[in-house]
Amino acid sequence: MNYLLLDTSNKPMSLAVMQDDNVLVEHTTNLKRNHSIQLMPAIQSILQEAGIDKRALDAIVAAKGPGSYTGLRIGVTTAKTLAYALQTKLYGVSSLEALAATLPDLQPGLLIVPVMDARREAVYTGVYCYRNGQLETVLEDQYMTIEDLNTYLIESQKDFIFTGNDLEKIKPLLDGKLVETLPQASKMIDLIHEPENIHTFHPDYLKLSEAERNWLNNQKS
Amino acid sequence: MNYLLLDTSNKPMSLAVMQDDNVLVEHTTNLKRNHSIQLMPAIQSILQEAGIDKRALDAIVAAKGPGSYTGLRIGVTTAKTLAYALQTKLYGVSSLEALAATLPDLQPGLLIVPVMDARREAVYTGVYCYRNGQLETVLEDQYMTIEDLNTYLIESQKDFIFTGNDLEKIKPLLDGKLVETLPQASKMIDLIHEPENIHTFHPDYLKLSEAERNWLNNQKS
Repeated sequence: MNYLLLDTSNKPMSLAVMQDDNVLVEHTTNLKRNHSIQLMPAIQSILQEAGIDKRALDAIVAAKGPGSYTGLRIGVTTAKTLAYALQTKLYGVSSLEALAATLPDLQPGLLIVPVMDARREAVYTGVYCYRNGQLETVLEDQYMTIEDLNTYLIESQKDFIFTGNDLEKIKPLLDGKLVETLPQASKMIDLIHEPENIHTFHPDYLKLSEAERNWLNNQKS
Repeated sequence: MNYLLLDTSNKPMSLAVMQDDNVLVEHTTNLKRNHSIQLMPAIQSILQEAGIDKRALDAIVAAKGPGSYTGLRIGVTTAKTLAYALQTKLYGVSSLEALAATLPDLQPGLLIVPVMDARREAVYTGVYCYRNGQLETVLEDQYMTIEDLNTYLIESQKDFIFTGNDLEKIKPLLDGKLVETLPQASKMIDLIHEPENIHTFHPDYLKLSEAERNWLNNQKS
């Protein structure tokens, strides 16, 4: 099975080409430039380097959110379009679980807490833990104030570790150790379950945009 | 400070461009193709993508061994030549410590044991442990039988974990848990100490090649 994996949820962009469990090429950038300009040439380039013709792909795996609205739309749209055009399977993976999976299974029972800055002292987060070598969800992905997250983790009375990137602004508010990692697209391979419906697959923003919230409020009033 | 980091010690090839602590681009392949053909175009490509002119590089960081004779010669020679031509600093890093650094500092006191298959039921290995966020050497890099390594680790009475890649043949012999990781060139940034002398820097094979051993034996007799 030949896989193309991509994560454009936030400022970093990570792509991988894998053959079964083997990473052939992994390419990760953390640049200010636009994913909309970078993504397609980067896909073409790593497929070529891996020696995998795009028609030989069996599955596309995409990080589906949460994350930046623009980044997710670019990644999910590209993944859907490629899966449709190349007639491959399509898998969606939580962008938070993908971040959690950048940490290996070292300490049994350790809670892994991926965080993305959602501004206003809030985060997108979830809580994960390895069991028998597989990540399991302890707390579903959600939008949460950092205060509530800190309280939840302290009350769990378990060891935990935060992970994520571009967290300069909220780092002082996180009440625990932080291991900073960029996404690595290849780590999503262990997170796929059932294929998505190519036509209905959409990003999972977890939270409405300000424009959508305003519109809904206007409708109510 | 702009860094170019490269690890071609074995079959995987990992390159990164960093600005201070920030990874701009990281590119890792695990292909059968030749590092001698891949390396220079890949360096040019990631510098271009990172938007760093080669003349703006301040330092080259290279994995210096142990590893494959050919891979190390290509990586070290390329690093020396670039550092000389571009008048940058040059840093060498143990290829085993670089592998250890792909595991984050999660469990206090955990011994991290990078291994490379050296054939004949032996490995290149070292033992590392995080202290205050920095990797420290517990056992110097060396050529060792797997039996001796297993004995050393059991006698240490500490938690330990193996790490490495392309270990299919020796995996059943390693007496403990293995987390398989490819090198990630960016992880070498925390491992650099004093700059090397560009003219005398050389790979650290840890063990003479069979041809060299035969030659030495012939000289004796």
